[in-house]
Amino acid sequence: MDKFVWPVRVYYEDTDSGGVVYYANYLKFMERARTEWLRAHGFEQDALLREQHLLFAVRSISVEYQRPARFNDLLAIVSQVVEARGATLLFEQTVERDPAAQVLCAARVRVACIDAQTFRARRIPQALLEERGGDVGDP
Amino acid sequence: MDKFVWPVRVYYEDTDSGGVVYYANYLKFMERARTEWLRAHGFEQDALLREQHLLFAVRSISVEYQRPARFNDLLAIVSQVVEARGATLLFEQTVERDPAAQVLCAARVRVACIDAQTFRARRIPQALLEERGGDVGDP
Amino acid sequence: MDKFVWPVRVYYEDTDSGGVVYYANYLKFMERARTEWLRAHGFEQDALLREQHLLFAVRSISVEYQRPARFNDLLAIVSQVVEARGATLLFEQTVERDPAAQVLCAARVRVACIDAQTFRARRIPQALLEERGGDVGDP
Amino acid sequence: MDKFVWPVRVYYEDTDSGGVVYYANYLKFMERARTEWLRAHGFEQDALLREQHLLFAVRSISVEYQRPARFNDLLAIVSQVVEARGATLLFEQTVERDPAAQVLCAARVRVACIDAQTFRARRIPQALLEERGGDVGDP
Repeated sequence: MDKFVWPVRVYYEDTDSGGVVYYANYLKFMERARTEWLRAHGFEQDALLREQHLLFAVRSISVEYQRPARFNDLLAIVSQVVEARGATLLFEQTVERDPAAQVLCAARVRVACIDAQTFRARRIPQALLEERGGDVGDP
Repeated sequence: MDKFVWPVRVYYEDTDSGGVVYYANYLKFMERARTEWLRAHGFEQDALLREQHLLFAVRSISVEYQRPARFNDLLAIVSQVVEARGATLLFEQTVERDPAAQVLCAARVRVACIDAQTFRARRIPQALLEERGGDVGDP
Repeated sequence: MDKFVWPVRVYYEDTDSGGVVYYANYLKFMERARTEWLRAHGFEQDALLREQHLLFAVRSISVEYQRPARFNDLLAIVSQVVEARGATLLFEQTVERDPAAQVLCAARVRVACIDAQTFRARRIPQALLEERGGDVGDP
Repeated sequence: MDKFVWPVRVYYEDTDSGGVVYYANYLKFMERARTEWLRAHGFEQDALLREQHLLFAVRSISVEYQRPARFNDLLAIVSQVVEARGATLLFEQTVERDPAAQVLCAARVRVACIDAQTFRARRIPQALLEERGGDVGDP
């Protein structure tokens, strides 16, 4: 699996009075990167919702905060799907500071594909599983 | 018209690396106060939407930023409807720092009552106009 | 250890177009609760910073998202310190929907006490350890 | 004066449960564009702060909300300085939806150049005034 890299600039909106990026805002950066990963694979989430009534919802997340990002930093969000199984995708994502690729925080994010009306689990679109090289979580 | 006062505590999420509350976040505080003003007058917005398909949407806002609020400040959001006419309410809102009532920022916010499906203007519920002492914007 | 309960109202700012609270925003609610837990124990973070150059920084977080919170919900953030050891506090926090105390999400949050200049670990103030019934993480 | 265009993608973080971009979040988009306008003219705000103790602070803003932006929209933030005088810049900014350049909201934003310690007004760097074609607000 190739890693997917998405750049993010830190603006004032992302920082707090401690002088660093507010801890919840790294989750915004990581979701932008997952959205762009989907788009890079041909999936627009507004179309998925409108045409297939599919949503992606975060089931769980764990984050290790190692070093702070600061105002005006140019970050790289590095994302990789490490497991794809039925209705869920497991992402490993790191927030790195350009240009030295220093890891600032590291996360594992489990995302479920659900029906927008019932919120029940739905199988991940086959094209997406194929796109990423197969349903590698299965034996 | 009585003024409606709603307290807001400044948390890290509200501040930026300049050490003060980020300028867009005062708009969050002001919306919380308008929501609580509606609630104090007997209107729950989730019920309004579900039962009458009514939404309130901000049409315009002007804000003067006079002094910054800081982390851990206890603020008072002071709100007053100064005009109510057909489908729109005009609020005057100030953000003040407790306990001295020093004005930090002052805003005028025009809110329209709209249909949730068509986004067309809808007349403000009569009970809300009466609650606030009549349709004072009209002659 | 008693549990500390802090109420949070869901406003529009907290939700997303999926109709539920945006996943990063639960972290804001949890930080507000930790701040109020500190305040309830006599610690104002702006004074801690000014007088003792102490900051609390989140080192890691894990969150299970079980059910969504929605616009206008009244939530209870339930917080408990389950370990206090040297420079770190481990919180267990749940977001529950009033009045039925249904758990919406559950988190473990590790917080470090650090020096505001050097970002080095600093021992948690003794008064805070005593307040919570002793340094229970130690044997 | 040329107009400066900066693209912004709408992510879930920007929307609310009304299905549209939350009204305060357009102010984030507009600040990103002003930051990038400065960068395009050779000014990095972290360097300005570190080397010249200069900050830009918003003094006032007025916004007309005309049509809503939605999840996944690609927007263009169009910015123009219409007045530069001593310590203040007046920006006209519109948020437009690509590709048709439909105006969604229009704002006027007054920004002051201030000293980071004293918060007193400071003259805008001459290079910035020259860069934009002179101090056009003056006679």
